[in-house]
Amino acid sequence: MTILEDIKAKLKQFAKERDWEQFHSPKNLSMALSVEVAELVEHFQWLKETDSFRHERATQLAIAEEIADIQMYLILLADQLDIDIATSVNDKIEKNKDRFPIESVKGRAKK
Amino acid sequence: MTILEDIKAKLKQFAKERDWEQFHSPKNLSMALSVEVAELVEHFQWLKETDSFRHERATQLAIAEEIADIQMYLILLADQLDIDIATSVNDKIEKNKDRFPIESVKGRAKK
Amino acid sequence: MTILEDIKAKLKQFAKERDWEQFHSPKNLSMALSVEVAELVEHFQWLKETDSFRHERATQLAIAEEIADIQMYLILLADQLDIDIATSVNDKIEKNKDRFPIESVKGRAKK
Amino acid sequence: MTILEDIKAKLKQFAKERDWEQFHSPKNLSMALSVEVAELVEHFQWLKETDSFRHERATQLAIAEEIADIQMYLILLADQLDIDIATSVNDKIEKNKDRFPIESVKGRAKK
Repeated sequence: MTILEDIKAKLKQFAKERDWEQFHSPKNLSMALSVEVAELVEHFQWLKETDSFRHERATQLAIAEEIADIQMYLILLADQLDIDIATSVNDKIEKNKDRFPIESVKGRAKK
Repeated sequence: MTILEDIKAKLKQFAKERDWEQFHSPKNLSMALSVEVAELVEHFQWLKETDSFRHERATQLAIAEEIADIQMYLILLADQLDIDIATSVNDKIEKNKDRFPIESVKGRAKK
Repeated sequence: MTILEDIKAKLKQFAKERDWEQFHSPKNLSMALSVEVAELVEHFQWLKETDSFRHERATQLAIAEEIADIQMYLILLADQLDIDIATSVNDKIEKNKDRFPIESVKGRAKK
Repeated sequence: MTILEDIKAKLKQFAKERDWEQFHSPKNLSMALSVEVAELVEHFQWLKETDSFRHERATQLAIAEEIADIQMYLILLADQLDIDIATSVNDKIEKNKDRFPIESVKGRAKK
């Protein structure tokens, strides 16, 4: 069992025990994802880019929690849609290699 | 090496080869995350909850790509901040068990 | 002076008095907008569509504040970019009339 | 009739003619808002703050359209919730004056 499968099993049990599966439609989970991402963005919104790397301990822990929340909702959403995250990521990396050939993007502004 | 570590290694090499590390500040990556999540939300915005589970093949593939994009930016962001995703998730699951005791939330509206 | 111009003048003075103009780059304001929208989404994420119209008084007031926050950041952002919101909206409405002719969209799923 | 009321009237007619009112629950409109804001964020995600003020003509027009989309969905959402935007904004500005007294925030990092 991989890390992602292990986390998925824990999250599904957690939701089942609380009778929360009824709330976890893909539509709702996509909304929850957007909310958690914004809670992450909030930490960086007024910072200069160069100040966004290192944080006071309390902020660092809060950021780690937001990242955890995003990962958890992403796993629950993918599960509801029967999508395997690891496979999808590896497929997308291969696709991106074709889409962004090194020689054509290196040294240019990212779009 | 876990799945998340394997993906991280691939993504870092991909960015390095294209000289894209300069764009990957936490501030910028959090923005990219919010953009990818919105591309996911777009698939569900006008659907009824019950219609958000199953999709035509082309839509299903597009959704899988958005999930991949979110996972990739999340891994790059966590890496820039020296945050271990798996550890953070497991810590958050434990915290949530205390925060949402089964007996106090079961049968109530999720907030 | 229109309502939007009146609000803009108040917001610019508010920011100037607090020396906050330095934080109000379009990049940062777009992040702030996304954060405020997510705070709005949070109120609706677990609700059924039919339950998202009417709210308890405290929630209604909180939602009104989020809508105000979004409007305020939108005005500040448009100002920084020298974009006139009313003109842009009227242009977009005309464009949408061409893009979505009544006879071709009526009775179909919105995309 | 103020600008916001004029736009609201046009948008309601536009939706009614297309039988789109059925899709415009507050839940759905909040999702649409988040999608439009992300399309705005996308223009700024890889730019330095100082490069986010001025844009090529095509980009400037695209940004103006996103701002229009956000304004339109915000007006439709407020209408569905019986919230008056101008009143809410003026209330929030007064509240913010108390929350952020000039002497206590001037010269400090915005949070």
